[in-house]
Parts: sequence; structure tokens; C-alpha cells
Amino acid sequence: MAAKRVVVYGGSGALGRTVVDTFVRNNWQTISIDLAANEAASSAISVGADQSWVQASESVLSQLETALGGEKVDAVVNVAGGWAGGNIAAADIVQSSELMWKQSVQTSIISGQIASKHMADGGLVVMTGAAPALQGGTSFMIGYGMAKAAVHQLVQSLAQDDSGLPANSNVVGILPVTIDTPGNRAGMPDADFAAWTPTQVFADAIFNWTAQPPANGSLQQFNTTAGNTAIVDVTKA
Amino acid sequence: MAAKRVVVYGGSGALGRTVVDTFVRNNWQTISIDLAANEAASSAISVGADQSWVQASESVLSQLETALGGEKVDAVVNVAGGWAGGNIAAADIVQSSELMWKQSVQTSIISGQIASKHMADGGLVVMTGAAPALQGGTSFMIGYGMAKAAVHQLVQSLAQDDSGLPANSNVVGILPVTIDTPGNRAGMPDADFAAWTPTQVFADAIFNWTAQPPANGSLQQFNTTAGNTAIVDVTKA
Repeated sequence: MAAKRVVVYGGSGALGRTVVDTFVRNNWQTISIDLAANEAASSAISVGADQSWVQASESVLSQLETALGGEKVDAVVNVAGGWAGGNIAAADIVQSSELMWKQSVQTSIISGQIASKHMADGGLVVMTGAAPALQGGTSFMIGYGMAKAAVHQLVQSLAQDDSGLPANSNVVGILPVTIDTPGNRAGMPDADFAAWTPTQVFADAIFNWTAQPPANGSLQQFNTTAGNTAIVDVTKA
Repeated sequence: MAAKRVVVYGGSGALGRTVVDTFVRNNWQTISIDLAANEAASSAISVGADQSWVQASESVLSQLETALGGEKVDAVVNVAGGWAGGNIAAADIVQSSELMWKQSVQTSIISGQIASKHMADGGLVVMTGAAPALQGGTSFMIGYGMAKAAVHQLVQSLAQDDSGLPANSNVVGILPVTIDTPGNRAGMPDADFAAWTPTQVFADAIFNWTAQPPANGSLQQFNTTAGNTAIVDVTKA
């Protein structure tokens, strides 16, 4: 059986590295897309921080076409993203909203384009949303909430029959509450880390979904308490 | 009693012109913000189509500060926006998604900044969402659905106590199904125009809300059948 292939957008981030490692360990060909190369991946595609959305899309798609040489991928996982706070009175609300859009929404659309052009029928697409943006207002992180609400909408759109994805695709949104990363530990040193979700829990879930996906178009929230994580379908009607 | 003041972002569009006319007719000082000046408004603030988000924000806020001369506004209404179709396989999906973001989300954030800096306590903020983006996937208009989902999220965020808006503000989202505009009639000449909502219905509702607002943070859908419009609160928990 030929090796399976996955594209991991954000493959050099804290979550992305764990996702890449998990697929590599399971003998998948793993293509990482990020600002910095992830040497653990089978191949790495670079994207520039200062590129416009159109430039990033064209550059990533062109590099990927070369890397694949006509082969299909079986999964596209977007774990790129970031976080910024600020309410509407924040002096940098435009800048932070633009950064959140770039990190979460632009990467999600480009990941969707990758799946549309290069994914095999029946493949898996994973996007990264956020639990707080599904539960109501996010006044202290307005740009973040808008970007993640847009990603949740995109998951629903891509799951529809005429979305432009290959036949029988499955599209799933992962909704972290808080991811246990070195950056988050440094930023919130007094928090209860046992209530945060380890990156390996996300990576294992995503890998398992390539064989047994949850409902197409669903949003899956990761709730961690005392070191145990429950994955809950929080899709709204 | 001093004249009341409203800022209408998108005041030269089909919906915006009706909103401006309605407030002018009711003796409000009406400040229009748009690419083209609306001569019917008390004053017009111009924004450039090629400006970045930061440039547009800074330019609009600077021009408005001069126009107001320290006076407060009683309402901020954003009816800027547009429509673009396209699923994830569309060749111009990035371009159309970027345009939708610019027309709907960037204007909504700048409108929120205006309210934060210049609105009187107890004022009204109106943002323009879209009914389809609340009801599920929008695969044939992916960029539009993402932008409108972000606006819905913004309405919820701005309605919270610590949003950065003045005390006792009311924030409401209008969710059109289809607005009866010359552009929409030209684009869909065979549609049932009696199922579309006239611009005057939106303008009257918005004007009435300045005295009697609906629930803070609510999304109000305009359903028109045989020429009659019902305004339905469709806020999700």
C-alpha cells in the first residue's frame, strides 16, 4: 500500500509540530507549510509573513504542486493561528484584527484550496476554530473572535455538497479551549495547566479521524479537566 | 433640544442613501462615510477604495473628529457591504473573500471605533449581517458567509459590558435576506421582488430603534413575503 500523505498548515507551531510528528510516526508522508521549515516533516513549504493573501495562496499552491508531482493527499490539517486580545477601544484593534484574520482565516481558505485541488476523494480536512467564539461575545479579544467565527462558518460551508471539495470529503473543526503550549505557559504562568489540552491529544484525535471521521461539518470542542480530555460535538443547528 | 447626530457608514449605497434620507427627514445631523459623497447628508467623509484597513481607520477617525468638533453622536449605523459568490474551487476565492472582509468587517470595526470614541452614553450601534450566514453553510458564497459570520460575532462582543463602547450602548445586527435594490433587480431580474425587503423598511426600523432599541446584542432578521416584512429576533444562545 502506498504511503498516505498529509499537508499540515502551521506545521512549525507548537500544535503543528506535534501533528507533524504524529503523522510521521505513523509513516505518512508529511508536508509542512509555515514561516519556518519543520525539519521533521517529509518536505517543507515556506510562506512569507509579509505576503498578501493572494501572494501567499499562489506561492503555497505553486510550491505544493511541485512537491506533490501529481500525487494526491489524504488529509489537509490547518493548525496555523495565533491569539491577540483587545476590545473595540484598544489602540491596535485594527492591527490585531488584521493579524488574527491573516493567521486563522487566510490559512484556512488556502488549506481549503489545497484540499479542493489536491485531496483524494474521501479525504479529511481539519480547521482550527475556538470554543469561546461559539459561546457568545468575545469582547476582550474582538479580532480573535471574529476570525474564529469565520472559520466555524467556513467549516459548515466546506461540508456542503457543492463546496468545491472532492467527493465524500469530511470537514471538521477543532475547537480548543486552551492548548497546553510553552507560549501559553509563559503567558499565563499561574493557570491550572491540568485544565489545558496537550497538543498530543489534538494530534491523536486528528490522526484517528483520518480513518474514522466525526460528522462532516461538525465542530469538536476539546474540554480538559484534571488532565483528562473529553471531545464534545458542539455543532449548532 | 439640540439636533441629534448619526454617522452612516456606507451612506452612498442603495441602503445607505435611504438611511441618510430618513434621518435627514427627521432633522438629525447626518454624517455619511463612503467612497463617494452623499450630497443629501449634512456632511460627507470620504474613504479610499485602495486604502489599507489601518489607513481607512485613521483617515475616517481623523476626518470625523474634525467634522464633530467635540460633539457626540447618538447613533452609528454601518450599512456598508457587498456581495460576491464563489465556492472554494473558484479561481478568485481569495480575492472575493478579501473584498467581502474589507466591505463588511473592516467597516464594522471602524464603525465600532467611531462609537467607542464619539458616541454618547446610551447610543445605538447597528451592524449589517446576513440571514444565510446564521443558518448554516454558505458554500456558494464562502467569502460572504465568513465576513457576515464575523459581523454577527462582533455584534455579540460589542454588546458585552467591557466591550469598550460607552455606557448603556445598544448594539443590534440587521440580517437581511435580500434587499430590494436596483443592483439586485438587475442581477436577478426574474426573482419575486415582493419577497425582497425595501430599503425604507430597514431605514424606518433603524430610526425607530434610536428611541426604542431591541435587545442589546440581538440579531434582527427581516423576512419579507408578498410585500410585508416581519422583523424576527434570531439571536442564537
